[in-house]
Amino acid sequence: MRIGVLCSGGDSPGMNAAIRGAVLRGVEVHGFEMVGFMDGWRGFHEADLVPLDRSAVRGISPLGGVILGTSRVPPFASGDGDAAEWQAIRARMAEYRLDGFLLIGGNGTQTVAKLLTDAGIRAIGLPKTIDNDLGGTDYTFGFDTAVSIASEAIDRLRTTGESHSRCMVLEVMGRNAGWIALHAGMAGGAQVTLIPEHPESIEQISEWVLSVRDRGRSSLVVVAEGFTLEGADGEVTREGLDGFGRPRLGGVAEMLAPLIEERTGIETRATVLGHVQRGGSPTAFDRVLATRTGIAAADAAHAGRWGTMAGLHGDRIDLVPLHEAVGRLKTVPDARYEEVRLNFG
Amino acid sequence: MRIGVLCSGGDSPGMNAAIRGAVLRGVEVHGFEMVGFMDGWRGFHEADLVPLDRSAVRGISPLGGVILGTSRVPPFASGDGDAAEWQAIRARMAEYRLDGFLLIGGNGTQTVAKLLTDAGIRAIGLPKTIDNDLGGTDYTFGFDTAVSIASEAIDRLRTTGESHSRCMVLEVMGRNAGWIALHAGMAGGAQVTLIPEHPESIEQISEWVLSVRDRGRSSLVVVAEGFTLEGADGEVTREGLDGFGRPRLGGVAEMLAPLIEERTGIETRATVLGHVQRGGSPTAFDRVLATRTGIAAADAAHAGRWGTMAGLHGDRIDLVPLHEAVGRLKTVPDARYEEVRLNFG
Amino acid sequence: MRIGVLCSGGDSPGMNAAIRGAVLRGVEVHGFEMVGFMDGWRGFHEADLVPLDRSAVRGISPLGGVILGTSRVPPFASGDGDAAEWQAIRARMAEYRLDGFLLIGGNGTQTVAKLLTDAGIRAIGLPKTIDNDLGGTDYTFGFDTAVSIASEAIDRLRTTGESHSRCMVLEVMGRNAGWIALHAGMAGGAQVTLIPEHPESIEQISEWVLSVRDRGRSSLVVVAEGFTLEGADGEVTREGLDGFGRPRLGGVAEMLAPLIEERTGIETRATVLGHVQRGGSPTAFDRVLATRTGIAAADAAHAGRWGTMAGLHGDRIDLVPLHEAVGRLKTVPDARYEEVRLNFG
Amino acid sequence: MRIGVLCSGGDSPGMNAAIRGAVLRGVEVHGFEMVGFMDGWRGFHEADLVPLDRSAVRGISPLGGVILGTSRVPPFASGDGDAAEWQAIRARMAEYRLDGFLLIGGNGTQTVAKLLTDAGIRAIGLPKTIDNDLGGTDYTFGFDTAVSIASEAIDRLRTTGESHSRCMVLEVMGRNAGWIALHAGMAGGAQVTLIPEHPESIEQISEWVLSVRDRGRSSLVVVAEGFTLEGADGEVTREGLDGFGRPRLGGVAEMLAPLIEERTGIETRATVLGHVQRGGSPTAFDRVLATRTGIAAADAAHAGRWGTMAGLHGDRIDLVPLHEAVGRLKTVPDARYEEVRLNFG
Repeated sequence: MRIGVLCSGGDSPGMNAAIRGAVLRGVEVHGFEMVGFMDGWRGFHEADLVPLDRSAVRGISPLGGVILGTSRVPPFASGDGDAAEWQAIRARMAEYRLDGFLLIGGNGTQTVAKLLTDAGIRAIGLPKTIDNDLGGTDYTFGFDTAVSIASEAIDRLRTTGESHSRCMVLEVMGRNAGWIALHAGMAGGAQVTLIPEHPESIEQISEWVLSVRDRGRSSLVVVAEGFTLEGADGEVTREGLDGFGRPRLGGVAEMLAPLIEERTGIETRATVLGHVQRGGSPTAFDRVLATRTGIAAADAAHAGRWGTMAGLHGDRIDLVPLHEAVGRLKTVPDARYEEVRLNFG
Repeated sequence: MRIGVLCSGGDSPGMNAAIRGAVLRGVEVHGFEMVGFMDGWRGFHEADLVPLDRSAVRGISPLGGVILGTSRVPPFASGDGDAAEWQAIRARMAEYRLDGFLLIGGNGTQTVAKLLTDAGIRAIGLPKTIDNDLGGTDYTFGFDTAVSIASEAIDRLRTTGESHSRCMVLEVMGRNAGWIALHAGMAGGAQVTLIPEHPESIEQISEWVLSVRDRGRSSLVVVAEGFTLEGADGEVTREGLDGFGRPRLGGVAEMLAPLIEERTGIETRATVLGHVQRGGSPTAFDRVLATRTGIAAADAAHAGRWGTMAGLHGDRIDLVPLHEAVGRLKTVPDARYEEVRLNFG
Repeated sequence: MRIGVLCSGGDSPGMNAAIRGAVLRGVEVHGFEMVGFMDGWRGFHEADLVPLDRSAVRGISPLGGVILGTSRVPPFASGDGDAAEWQAIRARMAEYRLDGFLLIGGNGTQTVAKLLTDAGIRAIGLPKTIDNDLGGTDYTFGFDTAVSIASEAIDRLRTTGESHSRCMVLEVMGRNAGWIALHAGMAGGAQVTLIPEHPESIEQISEWVLSVRDRGRSSLVVVAEGFTLEGADGEVTREGLDGFGRPRLGGVAEMLAPLIEERTGIETRATVLGHVQRGGSPTAFDRVLATRTGIAAADAAHAGRWGTMAGLHGDRIDLVPLHEAVGRLKTVPDARYEEVRLNFG
Repeated sequence: MRIGVLCSGGDSPGMNAAIRGAVLRGVEVHGFEMVGFMDGWRGFHEADLVPLDRSAVRGISPLGGVILGTSRVPPFASGDGDAAEWQAIRARMAEYRLDGFLLIGGNGTQTVAKLLTDAGIRAIGLPKTIDNDLGGTDYTFGFDTAVSIASEAIDRLRTTGESHSRCMVLEVMGRNAGWIALHAGMAGGAQVTLIPEHPESIEQISEWVLSVRDRGRSSLVVVAEGFTLEGADGEVTREGLDGFGRPRLGGVAEMLAPLIEERTGIETRATVLGHVQRGGSPTAFDRVLATRTGIAAADAAHAGRWGTMAGLHGDRIDLVPLHEAVGRLKTVPDARYEEVRLNFG
């Protein structure tokens, strides 16, 4: 059996551990031949591939990034691919003598895995994204590292905020789902946590910040990049506009900070955490989760369980059919948001 | 409703976050009065208690240790308590006007929670132990922090081991269950992971170390303190003796290192991680898990769900009956041990 | 002897250790009475002060921020103070029964210390600033922590940059001096380090980035916030304008990234590290430096060495006259910039 | 010019950065050819060498350990070498076409560098040791990382000590000089710091621990491995014996803990930090110091300044004659010990 591995989408801590787990189990236990495509589908299209064996994955679990590279190059120029494109994929597979794929990625990649499966091509999904917005798994690898970095940033901002009696606003990743903000906010004891799933008005936010001041503390506001402000007329922030119909400069933290300062009279500063959230050495949690996901994926290939994704359920890695995992965004449920609202006001 | 909180057993990162979660939810949402007993049952016996309200738990989530202190003082002088001791407990509860308990602890503490429940005293358990050997929950808080510290130690030992072509042996906690060794070993890519659940012979261990050398690398051996060596005659290490019937000095790492060096000719050094594993600021994972456990325990008290323990199941905190959670040690299943054996040899 | 302590300017990791060192030595060894003013000169003006004794400084060295708070409130409404303001300061000192000041701060604060000294008021300076731009000392406390955080951010950005073959631009603090960029860039192996002391043209920067690509790597550019771009006509960036006379949005990283991408065709992303640089627990280096500075300042007060600043020189803390320390900005010498240019291109 | 680089003695964080600095400056700026010997003098004796150029040192600064390996293999079988051994060294140098050496190491290595110099062989020293016990430089690289790790361990042990009202004893490295204990103890606010330079009696130590208890705190005792206990009769601990003439088991922490517990009645636990102190990624401080040391050494070779060592003096790297740097151990001066005694009792 000859298996191709590729990574697609944004990088996510743990990808190296996942590759290592799959290769150690696949090559050493099941006797697979394995190859990796560089920079995702780019390497597939351009025959840029490397053999994956024990020595290729030596010592890589603690390393950030991913040894194969990753990119957003899609398998098809357009949508679900036309006949010629499918033909090209099958031709490439024959050329590389591939029996199947292990696809490491988030929502987009797992949707591709399902497309391949529907077309009769063997594929198994390994769910990774720092955003944790993928169904079919309790947590995706990369998420714990991102939360850990964001939580550490909150610990740091809090001390400078308290020393200067300032309100500090920290913007973290999460365009469509507020998982990083939710967990980092809870871990760091943020007084206000704002997520895409729950628009709030600037009046409400300012009231929370003022009540924190009244209790003698300085506010730490953590906000997911996709949070939308509820305007006076019920309109929420739109792409390019703030909640008041004015052109929006910079990210959501840079929009919020002056509005909070204006309404509360409290000096307010914005920090955008940015790309540091997805870099660096993975946490032990993510290394373990990713390694086990890789092992489970190799086992699934060996057992012929194509068309599945290896997801975390409790303390086990189980296989879920790809069509159950993809297509819907996993967002933060109301009950979880209620938990962080404990700290508000 | 007036609720007493106490912590018992070894300290475990996340205990402060659990107290904070329970207090913010209990006092602010459900209107409880709450008090904390200092140093566990000692404070209960000696009327050493403090009020727990919002200001008492301000900013404590990132702090290691526990603001209430903890101790191994038992509720009863002997076993399950005699009639006089039970009478004393009820008298104290009346004196403190307590309606029920939140008990933060490991196997021993949750067994006490069950005893109280059986005697008609209201109690809810919050599972904590760095050892992760408690049933009724996927993971206990404190475990992730301990694994994280052990994994970081492996990363550090590996570089010095490789520079000197030495075999490094790291002893981590785990008297009866090998969870910390298992996860840290997987996260750190240890070549050999030894746990109490799986005795191995010194011949087998030496063979693994030699085969690592043959592949051009230096071995990192992680061993749980409760690991027992299988002797030539099938006898395993016993308290005070090594697997060869000789008196045992120091811990298991200090026993293994010279045996490995003797058999392989490779310079071998032992490090005992010790108490640093249970100290310091909790990981974001443990802070979130502990906070949610505290919230769930307060909700359980409000809902009258006494006699339960708040455990993690997937991405949810559910209540499990105490009699299901206690009494059996959760050990590492064979399939998990197989995963780390991937790296052996 | 009764000594007042106050902190002024931006917060800097190590301030708590400095206060602790001064108090343990001043109160326990020299028998001083000591008080701290809250939020710098605000507390002095408004009689907001706290006693400083052993219990007040218990366990504070590892804490970020500063227990006394800090602010940019000046001692005088205007410049060097008019007669009435000086009279008010002396009246307040009498009211508080102060014999002298320990002033913890950067260039501005040490200039005030010199003003006080010139006016016959007893003051000793403790140099702190994350920017390290103060003379009279090898390093200021806070700097090592800021460098450490910036260097860690570079380690993280590098992995995501390499995985995506992107050029990553990291903006760090340093309005007038490039010390943080210089040290973090060297520690992190940044391919390009840009500092205020050395304007460079966008053509030159792009050439460096391209030559890095030609060697098969992805560039990490670290830039101090005060860096100015040398325009085609030799004009450098000015406040509010970029080097091309166009209005400047956001910080210098956000200006550079699109210019680099435009000229090199390499996807380029900006990250602004911001306030996380000055927060959180100080490094061991800063805790030791700050503690020793506090001790030396208390000794100086005891010895009547008023009008001095306690600075690091080699492995010793020596006292330098304030008039030698203040008034000139310590910038990066050419030879140090040459060292980081090693990595360019 | 063709230069050989080798590392000798225990590994020390920063060695990779030193090699990288020397190679980037030596090869890229001065046009040297450079080679590295594997595992120190072993590689020299056995012709195990690798070319060192830009690609060989790519990205190595953040890595712990050392890419060349290190060992305690000496250049001579015995002492200062006999005529045949010197002849062999010159023959090897001719075979490798070496013009000179860069020698990275501690006291032993720098003594060898001086021997070579005295024999007319070109050598320049780069001082490294986590122990910081080398003259001719303010600090050696590796020391800051070791202090940082020890200080972090103190932060962790303190929380568990306070939670259990225990006295915690931490043993750190330092056989002949107490620098790591001194700096880590000061950074971590240890209540008692014990170093080889200052024997203390168990009565004195116990008194300090009791007085800490009387102030309501738990003691953290940091002790260098070479500390010797002053016995009742003035005899200090000797190799293999404790201060009471009894056989000594384990290290100094394991000897002290039961003695403290016996005399104070306070539960006391020992932790031996061990090899983790010398492993892992170097701090930013050590990376910068090591890189600059490497650069200075390459410049020294280019300028023909053989027979010198590149040492830190203030914020500069200066060259000191080897005969001034070697031969005397740099120990902790009394005034520095007085500073940490502030916290005692």
